[in-house]
Amino acid sequence: MTNVALGGGAGPALDTAAWQAPAAGLLLTDLYELNMVEVYLERRMIAPAVFEFFVRALPPTRNFLIAAGLAQVIEFLETARFTEDELAWLRRSGRFGAAAIDAFATMRFTGDVDAMAEGSVFFPDEPILRVTAPLPQAQLIETRVINLLHFQTVIASKAARMVLAAPGKDLVDFGLRRAHGAEAGLLAARAAYLAGFAGTATTPAAALFGIPIFGTMAHSFIQAHDSEAAAFEAFARSRPGNIVLVLDTYDTERAAEQVVLLANKLASDGIRISGVRLDSGDLAAHARQVRRILDAGGLADVRILASGGIDEMALSRLTAAAAPIDGFGIGTSLTTAADAPTLDCAYKLQEYAGRPKRKLSEGKATWPGRKQVYRWRGPDGVMKRDLVTLESDRRDGEALLRPVMRDGRRVAVLPALTEARAHAASELGDLPGALRQLDVGHVYPVEISDDLSALAAKCDEQIAR
Amino acid sequence: MTNVALGGGAGPALDTAAWQAPAAGLLLTDLYELNMVEVYLERRMIAPAVFEFFVRALPPTRNFLIAAGLAQVIEFLETARFTEDELAWLRRSGRFGAAAIDAFATMRFTGDVDAMAEGSVFFPDEPILRVTAPLPQAQLIETRVINLLHFQTVIASKAARMVLAAPGKDLVDFGLRRAHGAEAGLLAARAAYLAGFAGTATTPAAALFGIPIFGTMAHSFIQAHDSEAAAFEAFARSRPGNIVLVLDTYDTERAAEQVVLLANKLASDGIRISGVRLDSGDLAAHARQVRRILDAGGLADVRILASGGIDEMALSRLTAAAAPIDGFGIGTSLTTAADAPTLDCAYKLQEYAGRPKRKLSEGKATWPGRKQVYRWRGPDGVMKRDLVTLESDRRDGEALLRPVMRDGRRVAVLPALTEARAHAASELGDLPGALRQLDVGHVYPVEISDDLSALAAKCDEQIAR
Repeated sequence: MTNVALGGGAGPALDTAAWQAPAAGLLLTDLYELNMVEVYLERRMIAPAVFEFFVRALPPTRNFLIAAGLAQVIEFLETARFTEDELAWLRRSGRFGAAAIDAFATMRFTGDVDAMAEGSVFFPDEPILRVTAPLPQAQLIETRVINLLHFQTVIASKAARMVLAAPGKDLVDFGLRRAHGAEAGLLAARAAYLAGFAGTATTPAAALFGIPIFGTMAHSFIQAHDSEAAAFEAFARSRPGNIVLVLDTYDTERAAEQVVLLANKLASDGIRISGVRLDSGDLAAHARQVRRILDAGGLADVRILASGGIDEMALSRLTAAAAPIDGFGIGTSLTTAADAPTLDCAYKLQEYAGRPKRKLSEGKATWPGRKQVYRWRGPDGVMKRDLVTLESDRRDGEALLRPVMRDGRRVAVLPALTEARAHAASELGDLPGALRQLDVGHVYPVEISDDLSALAAKCDEQIAR
Repeated sequence: MTNVALGGGAGPALDTAAWQAPAAGLLLTDLYELNMVEVYLERRMIAPAVFEFFVRALPPTRNFLIAAGLAQVIEFLETARFTEDELAWLRRSGRFGAAAIDAFATMRFTGDVDAMAEGSVFFPDEPILRVTAPLPQAQLIETRVINLLHFQTVIASKAARMVLAAPGKDLVDFGLRRAHGAEAGLLAARAAYLAGFAGTATTPAAALFGIPIFGTMAHSFIQAHDSEAAAFEAFARSRPGNIVLVLDTYDTERAAEQVVLLANKLASDGIRISGVRLDSGDLAAHARQVRRILDAGGLADVRILASGGIDEMALSRLTAAAAPIDGFGIGTSLTTAADAPTLDCAYKLQEYAGRPKRKLSEGKATWPGRKQVYRWRGPDGVMKRDLVTLESDRRDGEALLRPVMRDGRRVAVLPALTEARAHAASELGDLPGALRQLDVGHVYPVEISDDLSALAAKCDEQIAR
């Protein structure tokens, strides 16, 4: 379908047209990118620029981060262009000259990308993506590149804490309704799965990303029936394939007793109940009582799922208490990364036309030049230390930034999502023990090389003001 | 364009297809909605259901909320259907019977909607949206209705605090890059404008919603040039229409002196500098020094904008300090509502087939029945108290829920975004003084009517378990 909403005029307003999720055109950017690009084009400032994406500091509640979103960035770069609707709008807006709009019309990404693999553990000051492209291209993509990398990294890093807090439990993303829009819901499902979640309740995540989807029933289903028992039986008989019954609409333990009665009734028809869901109250206490009722009723194989306000702290408490819960549905705290919904990240110019560049803004100074990150591990594979240095300063460690695109084309097949997920699991397994804990303040050693420090000092001297 | 990503199969995986923002089809929902709807359809449970959207409790850092997102909800309901791609995927998935999929194919929203106007102030327990529709329809739309109402309400409520903290200042949304995906960026621009922001940096928000857009320049623009002075001049000569120069790439006050020199040089060509932007360090101190330098240089009409880590607390401090800042660019704290990125909200079944319904889950019990919210104001227009009661219990106050859709069609023209914005401004003006403050704990009186309490008690007695 065309994005009709964009066809409506330079001024107001398409508020009355059908709301459409935005087309993936290059217009999806901050206005200043377009302003700057017009100047670059007019002044023929089209030499190669090197931009790097990195995080300045960890949120107070993180020991490490998980890189995510690269697949969407690469897809964006491969397909990035202004749509016809967008070009028409730009013309009508009167904000840009005809030469700029002609250049916009043919603009494609023809640059290089080097990046850390999705699922990699990383730390502040370490670039996870480096773009080398003619300055106008590298500038114009800034907003969407940050938008895509930032969000999935936020979610994967949050999800990883949950995975570490609940070993052996199935964690399922329930977050679409409170995600910040549709795209957030879909990409959160992806990032959580990448970090080790078992799946999601968000249906199109199966179609888009091949992620396992899970669904139970809502309280409204129970309420709409004349009785809870009638609701349970209706659901079981209509959808005998995978029956998960929600227990807490009225009284959790009484509902568990209904489940036992129903299971006996269904047995003669060969229908089995798969699981039950608890969604309120003291989850550990309810789980114990429900487990007892189910076991006594011969339903030892019925799984108990829990949901409702779960975060990594709750997972840790419930795991420590050995609550008999097999899986968790996790919504809000995951999908908004409620304790750290944002990262202090940037996409900064590090080199232009072969000259290293540095920003000196107070509290936001950057390391100049085209960089590489090396990692060293112990014999057991456990991460020991990282080094951020210039790309030209070759070391014998593991180089984390690898070529992904050259001249606008992929040079490597990106790992499938399941492979990225396996890589994330391996990375979490190789974290130093202290960093795997939920409590924070464990600092992983990331060194800045002497070469890089020397280049920064040289830049400071040479900056012409 | 078609959403090619959905065409690829029931299983994996379109991770390698171009990433597309999701189509607005009905598949964008939690799997359990589809599961329940299949049962409802099979059992012919298609009587009218009443669902209401409300917030259970205020976040600790809010005194009130601003309703937003209704326009997108109505557009969604008017156009909601499964796309052909989605139906094909559902068939391939093997999760639903043929009868259900046939019913999905023709499903349209044919129900009624009553709602508070966008921009209205509201409080916990007050429904802001009531849907009355055949049960399968009312259930199926749950996830996306919450997704749309929740997010814009989160952002408008955050933005309103900023607007109240900085009277007379122009606030501009700079948040797209750290918004949670593209849709979040666009809808945050809309919600912030609705709440009183002057505009946004997000370009397509102008095309989609008619919102004023603003753009300055990035530090990379300065860095890409051989000197800051050369960068300033290049920008000014290429784009003489609206020149806003960023000052803090190297040294803020030295940059301000460059601006004075440049202004003199440009004056002979009739080019005027509009403003400067500060983005780091002690913004009040820099603003005072820069103001002094500009004034001394004859540039009293050049405006000073500030950005970088601004939230309502910073706005309040800078306003109290009378910092000479004319406008603010606000990104992360706005666009993620970093202190309260989520609301404890719900869309709950309150009546089915004419019978009131109530959920009793611990800590999550709901008020049953089809409700209305009344508000009374003082002679000066200031809000005095609200009452939540049954729709049948007519009162003489201002009824806040108004008819919006009947039988799937709009019965009223929704206010244009500018009108909704004016309404929000009026509502903020009519807030009791204590609630306008950034400090919290001021409780506005919201009463539950005796009729409603009596109905809840009756439901508790009658619930058949």
